[in-house]
Amino acid sequence: MKIGSIRRDGETLVVVAVDGGAAVLADSMADPPLSVMAVIEGGAPVQARVQAALAGAKVLALESLRWLPPIPRPGKVLCVALNNSANKSRIMSGPNHPAMFIKPSSSLIGHNEPIRLRREWGRVHPEPELAVVIARGGSDIAHADAMAHVFGYTVINDLTAPIMRGEDTFHYRAIHPKAGDASQIEYIDSWVSYPARYKGTDTFGPIGPWIATTDEIPDPHALRVRCLHRGTLVTEDATENLTHKVADVIAFASSYMTLEAGDIIAMGTALKASGSSGGKAVQNVDLTSMGGPIAVEIPGIGLLSNPVEMR
Amino acid sequence: MKIGSIRRDGETLVVVAVDGGAAVLADSMADPPLSVMAVIEGGAPVQARVQAALAGAKVLALESLRWLPPIPRPGKVLCVALNNSANKSRIMSGPNHPAMFIKPSSSLIGHNEPIRLRREWGRVHPEPELAVVIARGGSDIAHADAMAHVFGYTVINDLTAPIMRGEDTFHYRAIHPKAGDASQIEYIDSWVSYPARYKGTDTFGPIGPWIATTDEIPDPHALRVRCLHRGTLVTEDATENLTHKVADVIAFASSYMTLEAGDIIAMGTALKASGSSGGKAVQNVDLTSMGGPIAVEIPGIGLLSNPVEMR
Repeated sequence: MKIGSIRRDGETLVVVAVDGGAAVLADSMADPPLSVMAVIEGGAPVQARVQAALAGAKVLALESLRWLPPIPRPGKVLCVALNNSANKSRIMSGPNHPAMFIKPSSSLIGHNEPIRLRREWGRVHPEPELAVVIARGGSDIAHADAMAHVFGYTVINDLTAPIMRGEDTFHYRAIHPKAGDASQIEYIDSWVSYPARYKGTDTFGPIGPWIATTDEIPDPHALRVRCLHRGTLVTEDATENLTHKVADVIAFASSYMTLEAGDIIAMGTALKASGSSGGKAVQNVDLTSMGGPIAVEIPGIGLLSNPVEMR
Repeated sequence: MKIGSIRRDGETLVVVAVDGGAAVLADSMADPPLSVMAVIEGGAPVQARVQAALAGAKVLALESLRWLPPIPRPGKVLCVALNNSANKSRIMSGPNHPAMFIKPSSSLIGHNEPIRLRREWGRVHPEPELAVVIARGGSDIAHADAMAHVFGYTVINDLTAPIMRGEDTFHYRAIHPKAGDASQIEYIDSWVSYPARYKGTDTFGPIGPWIATTDEIPDPHALRVRCLHRGTLVTEDATENLTHKVADVIAFASSYMTLEAGDIIAMGTALKASGSSGGKAVQNVDLTSMGGPIAVEIPGIGLLSNPVEMR
């Protein structure tokens, strides 16, 4: 099943992909109104009701829809950094485990919704990624059990403002306990960067349109990830190149942070330049100066495309 | 008014500070059940109902309460880094505006709830902070209007694991468009650190117990902030030492990220060592090896204290 969320006549509705369009499954008369979160949290019984309701459901043309993020307000959007085998040669030092940051739910937008930028923010580039949607939460999830916690997969464009990233980096003398006398302090020369702005600004999280449930994606590491700027292929990568796999990330992350139903894990940027791009990388696609649309496609899950507007 | 959230008999209830304890304002019979979020979003009419209900409300002893974060699941917890005048001499380079990161709502715990640590995480130290609770959301909030968006103030302990911070820092060659030929790439030696784990691990966000509404706190920059480890004063600072003030941060942050009702802004660490601490800093208080309880007190708002347990 492919499931998503749309806005229509002031209501948030659940849609399911069917031949010819999107079957509408919820309306405001339901109590509580059906939502993708309710489908996730309801498990098999609610999902069976969804299947049963499909037969009589109204089908809308895809072009007519106003898409929301499939889960409009997830508890957290956890993003894995530098998680591609092509990163390795560029890393002088860094962890052997997944390093992560958080995008706020306020940064998410749906398919076709405009990315809104300001000239003074400098460059903003796309980062095409597979995203995991958590079904059943938990902490300390065993590696062997991790895949059973996945509801499905969606597409995310982890927009990044590298000029902001540079601005929000400190070179400073961090306070540490003094070596040999932990009751006193010493200063250690350190670099630290803070991602809320360069990763979390409004509209920096296009996501969707569909969540493909796990039955449709038998192997999340056998997917192609494509990034297209104004129809020109920039990136053509594959999820087999992810350094830390889905189960690795779920097990590692959940040993620190409790995962909750509806949480999103963005698996890291696909970045292999397509053969026809002339070596152009996603970092060359400056949406601020070049405009959109910018699309991320994962065949089997969907195509996420967004125009660019200047604020 | 001072308002908070507690858990009692399987329900989340709203409490208001009164002489002799906490008046319970909500129960599961209300539809929808009253919550601190509903009080915030309901504005003056709901707040008037709260005041009216106080007269007949049951009063519980404070010692008997199981505290939740005052807003159990805020949309975002935005934290300002290195925002104290005492940081300045330690910063070799860094922004002149507020730099921010996000703590996930899953990291929050209430007053008296245990901070749960693992030996292998290494040092974990407290960071005592004033936190702002947003009443009315918005984007591009004008500096002159910013304070009108504040519902109140609470206390947060922004727990930090500096060993994890070091581990999740990359020294790498970042891809940038080539200077002079933006269609090609070049590598730039960069440092980047990712805070999800070292700031966002479960129980790393003790918060509360009370939100003091703005009528009780005429000037949020005239507050004392104290940090006590096992009853010994470690830090005695004042919010006048915040570099970026509450209105500065609201105006700046909202020009990037839409603020929503119930969002929390942690204003940055109070860090001036108390005269009696012998120069000991919060970084000397390693909760992993020393245990708790660790307390943050802001007179006029409340005292937040948490024990430490090993997982």
